[in-house]
Amino acid sequence: MLLRNNWYVAAWASEIEPSAMVARRVCGQALVLFRTKAGTITALEDRCIHRGMPLSQGGECEGEIVRCPYHGLEFDARGVCTKIPGQDQIPAGAKVNSFSVVERDAMIWVWVGDADKANAAAIPSYAYHRDPAWVWSRDTLEVNANWQLLADNLLDLSHLQYVHRKTIGGNPQEDAQAKLSATRDGDRVLVARWLVDLPAPPFHKAMCGFAGNIDRWQEIEFRPGFIQFYSGATDANTGAYEGRREGGMHLRHLHCITPETETRTRYLFSVAHNFRIDDAALTQRMHQLAVATFLEDQALLEVQQRRLAEDPDRALLDTRNDVGTVYARRILMELAAAENGKA
Amino acid sequence: MLLRNNWYVAAWASEIEPSAMVARRVCGQALVLFRTKAGTITALEDRCIHRGMPLSQGGECEGEIVRCPYHGLEFDARGVCTKIPGQDQIPAGAKVNSFSVVERDAMIWVWVGDADKANAAAIPSYAYHRDPAWVWSRDTLEVNANWQLLADNLLDLSHLQYVHRKTIGGNPQEDAQAKLSATRDGDRVLVARWLVDLPAPPFHKAMCGFAGNIDRWQEIEFRPGFIQFYSGATDANTGAYEGRREGGMHLRHLHCITPETETRTRYLFSVAHNFRIDDAALTQRMHQLAVATFLEDQALLEVQQRRLAEDPDRALLDTRNDVGTVYARRILMELAAAENGKA
Amino acid sequence: MLLRNNWYVAAWASEIEPSAMVARRVCGQALVLFRTKAGTITALEDRCIHRGMPLSQGGECEGEIVRCPYHGLEFDARGVCTKIPGQDQIPAGAKVNSFSVVERDAMIWVWVGDADKANAAAIPSYAYHRDPAWVWSRDTLEVNANWQLLADNLLDLSHLQYVHRKTIGGNPQEDAQAKLSATRDGDRVLVARWLVDLPAPPFHKAMCGFAGNIDRWQEIEFRPGFIQFYSGATDANTGAYEGRREGGMHLRHLHCITPETETRTRYLFSVAHNFRIDDAALTQRMHQLAVATFLEDQALLEVQQRRLAEDPDRALLDTRNDVGTVYARRILMELAAAENGKA
Repeated sequence: MLLRNNWYVAAWASEIEPSAMVARRVCGQALVLFRTKAGTITALEDRCIHRGMPLSQGGECEGEIVRCPYHGLEFDARGVCTKIPGQDQIPAGAKVNSFSVVERDAMIWVWVGDADKANAAAIPSYAYHRDPAWVWSRDTLEVNANWQLLADNLLDLSHLQYVHRKTIGGNPQEDAQAKLSATRDGDRVLVARWLVDLPAPPFHKAMCGFAGNIDRWQEIEFRPGFIQFYSGATDANTGAYEGRREGGMHLRHLHCITPETETRTRYLFSVAHNFRIDDAALTQRMHQLAVATFLEDQALLEVQQRRLAEDPDRALLDTRNDVGTVYARRILMELAAAENGKA
Repeated sequence: MLLRNNWYVAAWASEIEPSAMVARRVCGQALVLFRTKAGTITALEDRCIHRGMPLSQGGECEGEIVRCPYHGLEFDARGVCTKIPGQDQIPAGAKVNSFSVVERDAMIWVWVGDADKANAAAIPSYAYHRDPAWVWSRDTLEVNANWQLLADNLLDLSHLQYVHRKTIGGNPQEDAQAKLSATRDGDRVLVARWLVDLPAPPFHKAMCGFAGNIDRWQEIEFRPGFIQFYSGATDANTGAYEGRREGGMHLRHLHCITPETETRTRYLFSVAHNFRIDDAALTQRMHQLAVATFLEDQALLEVQQRRLAEDPDRALLDTRNDVGTVYARRILMELAAAENGKA
Repeated sequence: MLLRNNWYVAAWASEIEPSAMVARRVCGQALVLFRTKAGTITALEDRCIHRGMPLSQGGECEGEIVRCPYHGLEFDARGVCTKIPGQDQIPAGAKVNSFSVVERDAMIWVWVGDADKANAAAIPSYAYHRDPAWVWSRDTLEVNANWQLLADNLLDLSHLQYVHRKTIGGNPQEDAQAKLSATRDGDRVLVARWLVDLPAPPFHKAMCGFAGNIDRWQEIEFRPGFIQFYSGATDANTGAYEGRREGGMHLRHLHCITPETETRTRYLFSVAHNFRIDDAALTQRMHQLAVATFLEDQALLEVQQRRLAEDPDRALLDTRNDVGTVYARRILMELAAAENGKA
């Protein structure tokens, strides 16, 4: 179940360096991303109209055009063919498909669905990549699993104590005391988990020097392909649960889940914090912890994918912890039905 | 042509150590094998009912239950779900499929076919794994070939002098003098090969000190997935051919041929001898010879498999040496037809 | 689009050494090539009639017969079974398929199509492999691409300046001045490219010491699976373009394009020159340059193949430089239609 009519993060903006030709695949569509000399980001189909050669494989970006590596045909940033070596006339309509692409908040967003439905205003904002009060790091994994398995994983954190015992772990006792909620808001799902007035775990003490009990939260906002995590803590009994979350520790994890194919997903994630923002070693340590954690997920998801693929239509059992994942899957089904004209 | 209604050796009993989770596949069915604390061997489907995760991939066996590595669901030795973290009620019928499994003669036998047809009394006995008069060694190969190619190989020993020239070899002159017989007895095939009153080969002399001529035999008993070899020798003219096989040299090779899929086979074999049973170096030498020999077969069978797969329905030519293999294939076809309700 | 009714070069003659068993695939047909003791080259299907074992995988050529590596069946050079171990009678018609094979000009030509259409007189002659006035080297690449992509590549040299910038290169200025022609002659395509009265490039100076301007040509003769290149140069204004091509520099590149399957091609090529024929270092240098150049093509063609295979029926745009490739593809389509009885 791929959703073409959706904005996806195809790359980190920093990956598209001047004159680089970057190959990406989104919902099965092969793309080449590059910047013209003016810095405009461009997404063309990665396939020359002449002999089908991928432009990204040795092609060159020169000024405002891109050149095919095989016979040198040239295309402008809209994909229009501007030169065919050995030939004066260029046939009308000679054009490589082009796709809407937006650079925002250090990410490259692309739209490979119906062109008339591409609306850049629908791209979610992500302030933590541009707000100087925050410092952040980023990374990418390529996971051989269906994109929704990654979303399932993030929407049900009850796996922490089983999968991530060696990294971020989890605490069954606390899990039993957590206040959980999951709500659907249009095409978003909001999951929240609160631990109120409990002793600070070692990680929290080390990070922010909490002395006594603290209130802790994890909030997850799911949109198709774009999942935001907000986790934090304040001193207990200072009103966090009621909405006063000043001070304390605040962490933002972003998870961009971009389906390359039905069975392969590009997973771009970032870690942002607004405390000790000049402590590069801390930033690095949190980054490494995130990578180690997500590598554990990757190993698991790839095994899960292969097992599910053996019998893809067989029913699964939803549990109480799956409220968020059930909402998310329902949203995807509705959007997919709308995309296929069945809404 | 896989036969689900059949007992197969899925593992050596020693492979299922306490608290180990061992993944196996039999006739396409993914299994996890483990022992509860009480030592009971258990075979469950290797797929959690919740999100399809293979239980064997990081799951834990604790006391009498097994725990899913992803979200911690627990199942007892019958596969019944006994715990869903975060949820008090367990839905009726929440259960991982379980399979009949029997530990006998140092082997783990499983039945993945129709549950009501599983009859442990039908499992063949193999005394040489438990009789203190015998000493034995075991090993396993995974072969990328259809299981029946392995049986064909074992039922037609005329390949020895071609395939195993560098290991156990064969002797064309002797082959011409051999007394051959092949008979079918129900769902078994019995193949016998006798060399009577001939000089002892170097191997036989070295093993048992034969001085003069000897009578030699090779007897093969085929059942689907379970092939026993009995080879031996006595001094000539002491009545072996007529049934008196006391003394001399006796070797038992067991070949368990377990189809994982149509094109992949788990091959478990053992070598047993009842002479010089305290000579560990001899046991090891015979083991190494068997492994070297079967590796030659594996290389050949995998090439054969790929060639046959290019044109699987094309007719082959049976020769006089194929009497045993023709019987065996007929038994399989009859059993498969019965299994598919066409008998 | 494979063409079975065509002669293909399956191997260099020197590859089929006495008693060697060489596996090849042509148009999907698995072959084993070998020489009988008399030196006769033989091409049999690489599949024993008994159990489907490839004869090439450990089989033996002994005198005038070949022996299966599995159970020792023997076949003569026509594929007729001459021995079945353990059996006196050989069934009438017991035979491995055999194929027409011709050794000529240091190449092994095979015909895997309709046997009654095999006509050795249709095999093109290639004098440069036997004329003592020429010295030549040869090599082979296995390319994971459809065979016609290799022919396309060779028939449109406008790719030189893009793909081969680091090896043989090309010159856009000269390309603009080149006199091009492409004609079809029956099932052949002739492409010619002339550069008249221009300064000699460094390579030409170094090779043959040209001092002033030169006339240069590249002539390509395409037949299905067999493409000849003739390139050379003479001093300018000595009448080369009008047909007087004595003296100067003459190079012959042969490209044998043998389809193993739809997506894999055996590419055998040779480089021949008739100047400085005693200069082994020169011969070697030209050989290495050809290999380096064709490896660049291989990398490109394999990428192109994968991209085209994602959407094989999608239309491509032909350019003016594709006149030769368009003729060649038309010839192939006509021959394929004739082969399928639709002509």
